Amino acid sequence: MYRFDVEELRDAASPPFVDSRVVAFQDVDAAGIVFYPRVLEYFHDAYVAFLDAHGCPLSKALDEGVWAAPIRHAEAHFFKPMRFGDPVDVAIVRAHVDGSAVTFGFRITRGEKVLAVGQSTHVWVDRKTFQRIDLPEVLGRAFASVAGA
Amino acid sequence: MYRFDVEELRDAASPPFVDSRVVAFQDVDAAGIVFYPRVLEYFHDAYVAFLDAHGCPLSKALDEGVWAAPIRHAEAHFFKPMRFGDPVDVAIVRAHVDGSAVTFGFRITRGEKVLAVGQSTHVWVDRKTFQRIDLPEVLGRAFASVAGA
Amino acid sequence: MYRFDVEELRDAASPPFVDSRVVAFQDVDAAGIVFYPRVLEYFHDAYVAFLDAHGCPLSKALDEGVWAAPIRHAEAHFFKPMRFGDPVDVAIVRAHVDGSAVTFGFRITRGEKVLAVGQSTHVWVDRKTFQRIDLPEVLGRAFASVAGA
Amino acid sequence: MYRFDVEELRDAASPPFVDSRVVAFQDVDAAGIVFYPRVLEYFHDAYVAFLDAHGCPLSKALDEGVWAAPIRHAEAHFFKPMRFGDPVDVAIVRAHVDGSAVTFGFRITRGEKVLAVGQSTHVWVDRKTFQRIDLPEVLGRAFASVAGA
Repeated sequence: MYRFDVEELRDAASPPFVDSRVVAFQDVDAAGIVFYPRVLEYFHDAYVAFLDAHGCPLSKALDEGVWAAPIRHAEAHFFKPMRFGDPVDVAIVRAHVDGSAVTFGFRITRGEKVLAVGQSTHVWVDRKTFQRIDLPEVLGRAFASVAGA
Repeated sequence: MYRFDVEELRDAASPPFVDSRVVAFQDVDAAGIVFYPRVLEYFHDAYVAFLDAHGCPLSKALDEGVWAAPIRHAEAHFFKPMRFGDPVDVAIVRAHVDGSAVTFGFRITRGEKVLAVGQSTHVWVDRKTFQRIDLPEVLGRAFASVAGA
Repeated sequence: MYRFDVEELRDAASPPFVDSRVVAFQDVDAAGIVFYPRVLEYFHDAYVAFLDAHGCPLSKALDEGVWAAPIRHAEAHFFKPMRFGDPVDVAIVRAHVDGSAVTFGFRITRGEKVLAVGQSTHVWVDRKTFQRIDLPEVLGRAFASVAGA
Repeated sequence: MYRFDVEELRDAASPPFVDSRVVAFQDVDAAGIVFYPRVLEYFHDAYVAFLDAHGCPLSKALDEGVWAAPIRHAEAHFFKPMRFGDPVDVAIVRAHVDGSAVTFGFRITRGEKVLAVGQSTHVWVDRKTFQRIDLPEVLGRAFASVAGA
């Protein structure tokens, strides 16, 4: 069920896509470190940025009513806490296509340190019927670029 | 432009509608107090709860495509900080109807202490055309119940 | 690594702790269904409510500087989308204590329908040194109440 | 009480500081447009970016325990809705220093169109005592750079 191992994501070489950001003031919780669901937001933001960078903006797909990609599974593993002001790199280090379902592997680093890894599985569906559809070809090519060794 | 004075909201008697909540772990920011836009979320949550309590749930209005009520103006004034775990009462203490536009006055208290006040102006529009519409009658009656002295 | 199976969480009997809520207006994303990291916020809110209900409020623990419980792992599995206005029950259906680490199993239902399940593993540490500590006794008893069959 | 007029903010020339961003998938609400408290988050993010750009990162000020700048008042006025994927410029177009209190004027544009304006008043205080302090000199100079005509 879980496509990628924590170790595989942690040790993956040469991330092909990186979304850099700074931990926001409001992403921190009452314990002074990043509230963990925000880390899954970081993953999702990287996924949206990836679609943009590959010429298939999610906003356009939704506007045109062509497809949606609801989530089926998501998880994150946390190695070190993140704090307000930390500059972090959110990388998509893996993608696995299995019919209509695509699993993305993520890794967040600060410099050389791995802070968190995670994965999320989306299923491509018709925007109206919510029935599974074949992955649009342009997306298939985009995901192949991060498919892993 | 600003319908209600800070003092009027702070000192309003007998709030007719109160939404009680506890400040969440994730509503706090890196300075250890509530991140201020969350206070405006509290106002909006109270407004949604108010519509529910008066038999006009916003979710139903949106689903049925009848009306929307985009915001025109919002503001908040902060007297005392809120912290994780604080039990607070979010009251709607005023409502002023001016054609399609309704301004709500809010007050947040902890026990006897006023922590914040605010107001927001929504404009009722047709869900499809975004043209102003007359306020639905059931809403007019609901808002009259908090219209102030 | 993953303590509970999706099926175990989905089919668990008689949830001993339930936190009821309504999906908020702002929890929905541009695709019109709940933005998935919000579901993990729902899990965390239930965990905070559980601590409150068992006389060990997290806000007090943080204020007193006794312990913190940073997260090590979190995941969610989604069966059906949630929409604005949906009344949902967020249940803690399992807890597994392993030294300083506790894994909670969650399930979200609407009526009889299971919408999502998930789990999160927290590690109890000293608030200052971030070294692992023994689970406070009162918490051990609280977690035993949901320990599962 | 309100330092700047809506018109003054809308028509201000040559914004000296601009924070560009794209409206996120999760910033939209069940009505399909940006949830309004997110607009105040955009203002705050621009303020944090401004402090960074002027060599006074808020994260450093909080870590060192020197000062905090809790908010006293905030407001926003909305001209046009924002939608997922919209590229927007969040500008700080005014700053007014009044002892320990500083009011910032914000404007959000998409191309030539003004979508929203707003202002927020922060009060500089000692991080420990929460007593008002003189504005640090480096901040005084930074704010003078956007002080308006």
